[in-house]
Amino acid sequence: MAADKERFVNQIADINGDYTKWYTDVCLKSELCDYGPVKGTMVFRPYGYAVWELIQAQADKRFKKHGVKNAYFPMLIPQSFLMREAEHVEGFAPEVATVTHVGETELAEKLVLRPTSETVIGNMYAKWIESYRDLPLKLNQWANVVRWEKTTRPFLRTSEFLWQEGHTAFATAEEADGDAREMLGVYEDIANNVLALPVLCGRKSEKEKFAGAVATYGMEAMMKDGKSLQAGTTHYLGDNFAKAFDIKFLDKDGTHKYVYQASWGISTRLIGAIIMAHGDERGLCLPPEVAPIQVVIVPIAAAKNPHVVEKARALADTLRERDLRVELDERDLSPGFKFNHWELRGVPLRIEVGPRDLERGMVMTCRRDTGDKLELPIDSCEMTVSAYLEDIADNMLARAKAFTESHIVAVKDMAELSAALDGGNFADAYWCGDRACEDKIKQEYAATSRVFHSDQKGATTHKCVCCGKKSKHRIYFARAY
Amino acid sequence: MAADKERFVNQIADINGDYTKWYTDVCLKSELCDYGPVKGTMVFRPYGYAVWELIQAQADKRFKKHGVKNAYFPMLIPQSFLMREAEHVEGFAPEVATVTHVGETELAEKLVLRPTSETVIGNMYAKWIESYRDLPLKLNQWANVVRWEKTTRPFLRTSEFLWQEGHTAFATAEEADGDAREMLGVYEDIANNVLALPVLCGRKSEKEKFAGAVATYGMEAMMKDGKSLQAGTTHYLGDNFAKAFDIKFLDKDGTHKYVYQASWGISTRLIGAIIMAHGDERGLCLPPEVAPIQVVIVPIAAAKNPHVVEKARALADTLRERDLRVELDERDLSPGFKFNHWELRGVPLRIEVGPRDLERGMVMTCRRDTGDKLELPIDSCEMTVSAYLEDIADNMLARAKAFTESHIVAVKDMAELSAALDGGNFADAYWCGDRACEDKIKQEYAATSRVFHSDQKGATTHKCVCCGKKSKHRIYFARAY
Repeated sequence: MAADKERFVNQIADINGDYTKWYTDVCLKSELCDYGPVKGTMVFRPYGYAVWELIQAQADKRFKKHGVKNAYFPMLIPQSFLMREAEHVEGFAPEVATVTHVGETELAEKLVLRPTSETVIGNMYAKWIESYRDLPLKLNQWANVVRWEKTTRPFLRTSEFLWQEGHTAFATAEEADGDAREMLGVYEDIANNVLALPVLCGRKSEKEKFAGAVATYGMEAMMKDGKSLQAGTTHYLGDNFAKAFDIKFLDKDGTHKYVYQASWGISTRLIGAIIMAHGDERGLCLPPEVAPIQVVIVPIAAAKNPHVVEKARALADTLRERDLRVELDERDLSPGFKFNHWELRGVPLRIEVGPRDLERGMVMTCRRDTGDKLELPIDSCEMTVSAYLEDIADNMLARAKAFTESHIVAVKDMAELSAALDGGNFADAYWCGDRACEDKIKQEYAATSRVFHSDQKGATTHKCVCCGKKSKHRIYFARAY
Repeated sequence: MAADKERFVNQIADINGDYTKWYTDVCLKSELCDYGPVKGTMVFRPYGYAVWELIQAQADKRFKKHGVKNAYFPMLIPQSFLMREAEHVEGFAPEVATVTHVGETELAEKLVLRPTSETVIGNMYAKWIESYRDLPLKLNQWANVVRWEKTTRPFLRTSEFLWQEGHTAFATAEEADGDAREMLGVYEDIANNVLALPVLCGRKSEKEKFAGAVATYGMEAMMKDGKSLQAGTTHYLGDNFAKAFDIKFLDKDGTHKYVYQASWGISTRLIGAIIMAHGDERGLCLPPEVAPIQVVIVPIAAAKNPHVVEKARALADTLRERDLRVELDERDLSPGFKFNHWELRGVPLRIEVGPRDLERGMVMTCRRDTGDKLELPIDSCEMTVSAYLEDIADNMLARAKAFTESHIVAVKDMAELSAALDGGNFADAYWCGDRACEDKIKQEYAATSRVFHSDQKGATTHKCVCCGKKSKHRIYFARAY
């Protein structure tokens, strides 16, 4: 391959220039994904799908520890189901895709493609739940959902996306609300310890809550442009869907009562969060836990030194025996091209096996997160690689956390709010709690309330950032994906 | 729970009486699944979905060994894509669900829900494949597909089902056809060694092949009523879709050529096969490899003997440490009810922990496949349980194989064919190869050709079972699900 073409293949837009183009370039050129033929759809290419599979495995393990079982519910939902919960239909109707025909035959009842499954699952829960003995019921499904989008942004806004949706039912309101809060903790654990992603967790405002919920809790992650990405939400549904679908149980006291429910979901959006929280001018930077390739081995000057390839292959085998995900790049391309190729794809650690280093029994390593190089003895480097990957994960989390903390600005009025947002920050603000102020901030600065601050002490002793009246809450405002 | 209600809950129709009702009873009462609210749809309840997850894990491992990578393609396909391959559209159009609206807005182009993904994947392959270096390309997706059904039979005929579809592209016809044959071997391995399911493997007739394929290979499993269940198919697609979607590569000789393709799939139908090949008058009988619960421990007279529960819990822990999937049934119900409950659910091995046996340091085991009981020392039984489960799997395969072999009847003419079918057998027949004879057999006896016999020696020296003319093939005819 000519040097010019090599450069072109790995070239991405400047992250400090056109951030939007940088994001799209990273998505497409790292071969995470591609656009589908229908506007709004995307294809998960093997590299991107492998990231999702690794996220799934980590999440699924945690859900099962919490007593959740997997199930699968139909994708096609009677349109009438959506209508039963007033807020729910209002929230979802405009973006719902409707099936009207099979072959040439028109269906008697229109069906919608699930935008989320509270309704169809509620219908089944009403059938399955009879007595208090059937509670709690905690099910999850891994599924595709459809919510029509006018613009396509890979992983962030697509008409079809992949996610998990947990749906739980309890005898009491406290348990259901507790489940929503507890699962937010599970999501935070996944964000921090799997994705190296710091998140701000808390309840959302009435305006920003899920259509049909009593309360929505969310985790928000800061991207490198200072915008927020909603990385996961959990909802306390009260008895809203129980009443809409008549989900009752016979309690110990001999009376029939409505159940209380929660639901919670994370999606392939998380891949977008990884890209934008960790990526840099060289492309993707994957957290080791979800990197399909954790270590890439590049033989140097291999054509003239057959023993280099032998040593590289042996090293790859040794690392694979330790359950590391290893790629050995034996392609007939220049080392420089390969370095760029794997850096663009965000492989956490590169090991160069070259003839000169080998003479001294050494290999050169280069970590993706910092670019730091370190020489290691080839015969024992398998002992240090796992620890090295952990260190990379720790550093990525610490670095993203420092970035987030340094981009949260306390603001007192609209001028400060505007300046904070324009400077690529989250605004840490006091708010009166009125929807009108949220609407005004959205209209004037294209920002929304994200989650309540975890520290609400003294939240009622300030002035609202917007109207100046007495504040009720401390809350983050940010522009968001 | 009153004894009467206990009996009712576990009661299923007589397998030797109403086989169809027996099947439905087993599906619903073992809580594998339920009917969805829309006609033709089903819900995978946790127990049934867990079986599917275990099948997936085994299949996925094997696919990856064959160099296949997972990806995910959009579910919504432009209707025009289906039209591009003439046979393909003819085969699928009548059962395809069509999306026409989003919210209140009519779509400019109608979209169909994938009945299979050759077209949308072909569209992407045309974009991705440039040169011979990009070949072979071997991708798989785990996905839901929609094919409208007028009647619902859980796992067998539902409008939406879950499956995997592999899609491969090669430089030559030989490689693509080879892939279709090789993957049939992988499926046979899964059937035999994961599902304890004997299968007849071979090519299908022109009439029975996949719409758009050059050749279809299938594996057929015999159910206990002598009917056949198509348990997996692989297709050699030739360059049919390559021409329809313009999938070309630049070959080493500098010319552009069409790729040759294969596709292959197994689905949640396999769960139906397990139910009907292994089930009996007591219900489900699950192969240990895909049993969500491999061992159930039932404490006997536990209320009066607390040490029984202690011992039972300790045994459960010990077995779980050996990676066995264990359920300890501590419910306040009679042992008899519990035995029926877990037999209905097909748990391969039951261990009863009772006070009298414990005095002698023993526990009683009962295997689901034969009902045989065996006493084992509690302190060492974890050493034998794994081997015991393997023996159960071996026996289930051998038994189903013996059943299949004893229900294949060589037939020479239509009278013998009819008698064989009515007697609950597959017919081993010679056939002239004419579609008219297949049509006639279908019309008169509701049977179809299944796969060519693996032994075609002398196949041209007989008379066709139907028309009496010179035969060309040896082939199985059977009634089928």
